[in-house]
Amino acid sequence: MSERVDQLFNGGVKIIQSDAVFSFSLDAVLLADFAHVTKKTRLVDLCAGNGAVGLFLSRHTQQRVDLVEIQEKLADMAQRSVILNELTNQVVVDNFDLKEAPQRLGADFADVVTCNPPYFADHPDSVKNPNPHYAIARHELMTTLNQVLNVSSRLLKTNGHLYMVHRPERLDEIMAALQANRFAVKKLRFIYPKVGREANMVLIDAIKDGRPNGVRILPPLTVYTDDNQYQPEVQQILYGSERS
Amino acid sequence: MSERVDQLFNGGVKIIQSDAVFSFSLDAVLLADFAHVTKKTRLVDLCAGNGAVGLFLSRHTQQRVDLVEIQEKLADMAQRSVILNELTNQVVVDNFDLKEAPQRLGADFADVVTCNPPYFADHPDSVKNPNPHYAIARHELMTTLNQVLNVSSRLLKTNGHLYMVHRPERLDEIMAALQANRFAVKKLRFIYPKVGREANMVLIDAIKDGRPNGVRILPPLTVYTDDNQYQPEVQQILYGSERS
Repeated sequence: MSERVDQLFNGGVKIIQSDAVFSFSLDAVLLADFAHVTKKTRLVDLCAGNGAVGLFLSRHTQQRVDLVEIQEKLADMAQRSVILNELTNQVVVDNFDLKEAPQRLGADFADVVTCNPPYFADHPDSVKNPNPHYAIARHELMTTLNQVLNVSSRLLKTNGHLYMVHRPERLDEIMAALQANRFAVKKLRFIYPKVGREANMVLIDAIKDGRPNGVRILPPLTVYTDDNQYQPEVQQILYGSERS
Repeated sequence: MSERVDQLFNGGVKIIQSDAVFSFSLDAVLLADFAHVTKKTRLVDLCAGNGAVGLFLSRHTQQRVDLVEIQEKLADMAQRSVILNELTNQVVVDNFDLKEAPQRLGADFADVVTCNPPYFADHPDSVKNPNPHYAIARHELMTTLNQVLNVSSRLLKTNGHLYMVHRPERLDEIMAALQANRFAVKKLRFIYPKVGREANMVLIDAIKDGRPNGVRILPPLTVYTDDNQYQPEVQQILYGSERS
């Protein structure tokens, strides 16, 4: 199994990666950049994968960070990244099904939940990646959108924030499921691959028990220039100076 | 009462306007541009005001167009614009409450419903325009979002399209009310006043009895340049050549 260590931004956190199992993508980097985390933020990252989102954000809080990941190989990679970054006193890898998280971690305690969930519903006729690690990360084989939101809502304090990245085509289902799980949408940011193209990602900031009818649509974020270079804002997010 | 005749785009339709009563705005122009209307489209425009949206779109269909407007003065202006444009054989002004539309016009017959509704809920403590014509056009004094969507759904055929312009802060309520009234969101386009600012308008294309989870987020539309000129795409919509 060929692994590598990738180091991107946010104060030099190193992430152990393996294309044979799972690699974090731009989605994770944008989600970590979008989430608002302060020194006092108690954070849980669901569908943590190799831990990229939670590890990036751990540098912004002094509180404990939980990385919940059901796949043993990915949880093991995340745990080794925690050790590599000398974060064993702060970051805990929880290798269990996220539906057990409220029972095992507690209820109404988190300030922030982040999640880069599987994007695609498990339709019987949908084509899935033959690599089971990728299939589980991409398709709702082990969890569902509604379960992710239900667990997030139970973990969060009142007025706690859920930050999630997802696919815009499911926005109708996402908005309905958020409402059904006591969330009010606070901010949406749509990510466009290039100028003139339709959005292929959406960043969502939702508040548990928040007020409805206060949706803010942030300026669009376009990823690539016409000649396939990262746009300046994305370059800044990927390689820029450390955030305050 | 000082009236004027404004002529913008779309084959030279002339619109009688009066700032003392109501003037159509960029919202109406963008909505008319966003709506897909062909020669065979049977169209109803709700909350028609002085008729701008329906009159603009009447040039693209050979079928009857209904303009439903509750305010007598605005319906009268719309009727005079219909005469001015020699469209009395095609465009009908319906000066009644939109909730009567299914009973008076019929059910399940429209291919397209367009609507530029009042944007603001009628909160007891909200500041309203002292001009009652503007107050009714802006606040939900005579109708509500849910009523607009309920009536639209009843007027439309299966797979008919509702095109609506609204404010993004109510997107959560809009999405829930669309679903409750048998609509599936097909396309959203967010309108930004300038680069780097949050969206202040959203164009919505929803299909009666359509399939969920197929939301498309169109490229963003920015209205003004940094020095307060219309962006090229908006100039094209406002003053450009006639659409096919």
